Amino acid sequence: MRMYDLITKKKHGEELTDAEIAFWIKGFTTGEIPDYQVSALLMAICLKGLNERETATLTMEMARSGDMLDLSAIHGKKADKHSTGGVGDKTTLVVAPVVASLGVPVAKMSGRGLGHTGGTIDKLESIPGFATTVPADLFIKNVNEMKLAVAGQSANLAPADKKLYALRDVTATVDNLSLIASSIMSKKLAAGADVIVLDVKTGSGAFMKSFEDSCALAETMVRIGNNCGRKTYAVITDMNQVLGTAVGNWTEVEEAIAVLHGKGDPELTYVCETLASFMLVGCGIAKDREEAVCMVRKAIADGSAFRKLCELVERQGGDASYIEHPEKMPKASFSLDVKAETAGYVASVNAEEVGMAALLLGAGRERKEDAVDPLVGLSVYKKVGDFVAKGDVIGTLYANRKEALSAARERFLAAYKFSANAVPAVVPVYGYVDEKGYHALS
Amino acid sequence: MRMYDLITKKKHGEELTDAEIAFWIKGFTTGEIPDYQVSALLMAICLKGLNERETATLTMEMARSGDMLDLSAIHGKKADKHSTGGVGDKTTLVVAPVVASLGVPVAKMSGRGLGHTGGTIDKLESIPGFATTVPADLFIKNVNEMKLAVAGQSANLAPADKKLYALRDVTATVDNLSLIASSIMSKKLAAGADVIVLDVKTGSGAFMKSFEDSCALAETMVRIGNNCGRKTYAVITDMNQVLGTAVGNWTEVEEAIAVLHGKGDPELTYVCETLASFMLVGCGIAKDREEAVCMVRKAIADGSAFRKLCELVERQGGDASYIEHPEKMPKASFSLDVKAETAGYVASVNAEEVGMAALLLGAGRERKEDAVDPLVGLSVYKKVGDFVAKGDVIGTLYANRKEALSAARERFLAAYKFSANAVPAVVPVYGYVDEKGYHALS
Repeated sequence: MRMYDLITKKKHGEELTDAEIAFWIKGFTTGEIPDYQVSALLMAICLKGLNERETATLTMEMARSGDMLDLSAIHGKKADKHSTGGVGDKTTLVVAPVVASLGVPVAKMSGRGLGHTGGTIDKLESIPGFATTVPADLFIKNVNEMKLAVAGQSANLAPADKKLYALRDVTATVDNLSLIASSIMSKKLAAGADVIVLDVKTGSGAFMKSFEDSCALAETMVRIGNNCGRKTYAVITDMNQVLGTAVGNWTEVEEAIAVLHGKGDPELTYVCETLASFMLVGCGIAKDREEAVCMVRKAIADGSAFRKLCELVERQGGDASYIEHPEKMPKASFSLDVKAETAGYVASVNAEEVGMAALLLGAGRERKEDAVDPLVGLSVYKKVGDFVAKGDVIGTLYANRKEALSAARERFLAAYKFSANAVPAVVPVYGYVDEKGYHALS
Repeated sequence: MRMYDLITKKKHGEELTDAEIAFWIKGFTTGEIPDYQVSALLMAICLKGLNERETATLTMEMARSGDMLDLSAIHGKKADKHSTGGVGDKTTLVVAPVVASLGVPVAKMSGRGLGHTGGTIDKLESIPGFATTVPADLFIKNVNEMKLAVAGQSANLAPADKKLYALRDVTATVDNLSLIASSIMSKKLAAGADVIVLDVKTGSGAFMKSFEDSCALAETMVRIGNNCGRKTYAVITDMNQVLGTAVGNWTEVEEAIAVLHGKGDPELTYVCETLASFMLVGCGIAKDREEAVCMVRKAIADGSAFRKLCELVERQGGDASYIEHPEKMPKASFSLDVKAETAGYVASVNAEEVGMAALLLGAGRERKEDAVDPLVGLSVYKKVGDFVAKGDVIGTLYANRKEALSAARERFLAAYKFSANAVPAVVPVYGYVDEKGYHALS
């Protein structure tokens, strides 16, 4: 088999066989097939596409390219969730303790990631003492004993995807549905859960800007997951504005605590309830979504979900007193209230711009080796549909470098568009995709 | 400027600016732009195309990527010819002395090339003593004094093309008209001639199998040449069978000598006359093609073209007595007459198969570092339309390794298809392309 022939076939719009895809991924992972041939194939894929079978095979081959986590020592059906990425997305910090408190084992591998804020791992590390490097046996033991463990993603989970993504990133071959879906799903498949709930963001602040593209991605991923024997759902959620009110690391943990106390932002709470409900149904803990949502609300109301978070923090070496008393946490050195310069109804809040403001404040990282500042970030007080008078405080910025505030303020203000006429609020969840297709949620 | 953005533009089918193409070629030549980005762009070009301006700019940038030969010290308009490659193509060995004898300066840079037989340089080197490494000043002096010099192609002629071709060759991005045309023309532009005559082969033994593709390539190259201030013509010639009767190295020199004596194969002679006539018209030596053809025939009839070849051989250190008396040359150790196994009219002769037979005999090279055997090769006696009786000798094979004969015989026989019905002979020249487009020749 020659890589040259694979490139030629795809260039002519022909299908690659399973053996050919396996040959490509194996050869690329070992370095026998050079980057320049793979990038030519990637471009041909972007312009000619992969069909459903090719996409599923690519995903499985990438999943198999490194370690496949063996969670068989964990009792019961294991659930995992994944978000395609948004600004202010702290749902894992809520959803994982909620479902764990209801008996669903969650063995969560999370990333640090590049972006406006850190990943779930960075957010958890803002809790003093919290360790995200957990030996495999302790990780399994923790999940068995308390249903929940969160660890930084092993370097050897789907290494082919890691290598392929790095190449796509520099060859303008990122934006193909099959490649995106296989990249996400290969890691989820390797991470070993039985039930996978995907949070597919849609809107100006999402990777997929249009609803149609988001749905197509969701459907592709759900098909891959189900074809590979994992019960998979995708929830299509809004990213036309920031999710909740906090953007940063510790500040997002604080907001998650508020949700677990039943005092969180209503939209954020609704998104968390929805995601958690699919994990419960998928694992067979609840018979349907209605029952699942009731269980979630009860776990929040009776404090068991909050206690599960405290337990997680303690188990992984963290100081849970910061979870019990978030007000203990030192504040960032500088803060700035951002005031509206015009009056009107909030017509849109560009989440990417708000994210850029957070990045300027030091909450995220531009390069892999950068450190995030756990205490900086911002709060968003006004959402789409809200009326704002001139001079109203629409947000607050927190920084440890005073000079960061003014550029961040500009980006933050630039995110807001106002309208003289009333604007309807944005729906936080549009619908979900299961093996039968898309279903609207109202 | 970022290569990433160029890839993105072309992926979306947008035009690249001249500055962007210059950035790409410069960065690729210096190694600042990595292969994997260039191969992604090449695939996008294959699938989305380059327009006329982009193709011309790419050609000029590749021509400028290394040395641009300065032929200004040579008096008069300099002519060059180039063939897209065929089996038995020895036209340069005839055309160059013919036009030089008529006063056209020919400063010919030729390649060795990979293929069924050697290139022009290999063929000339079969003449004892002939040196193709000529210092630049002597090369210019020879052209000024005797109108003709032939040297091996400098390594630094269009290095960007060399590097790009090597990458295309392993990434299945060879077969794009703009890339093919720019590759050929970049070297011709760098080689400095004022008049360029292209011999575009068409048919089963040619790189371009169909007449339409050959015409499109011819038109693209003629446009590039004329846009860059070089008077450019392309002659579309047949490669549905071997050109002439000899395939090899010395054996092709011998056949060229026969043509220069006016005793050559009529089709080969006609192709040589046609190519030479465009060089004469392009340089203003003849007022039109009719006059040019008369001049060519006279130069052959009065022996001046033949004497020019002898002069070339002497000037470059060769023993011209082999040109005067080709029968002096030792023969290959073994020969084999190939006899027809069936009777009928020759319906087709697959030139690629005949070429493969010559390669098996040792006349060509598979890898750059291989040596060619100057004395081996084959003769083709029967052409399309000829009637053959069973047992007639249709060709002779010459080898220095006896064991090579049987496989070569098989390939040679496989090239022939016979028909019970009469078959018309193949036209050697279909037409030509000038700045006004295609013109049929009958």
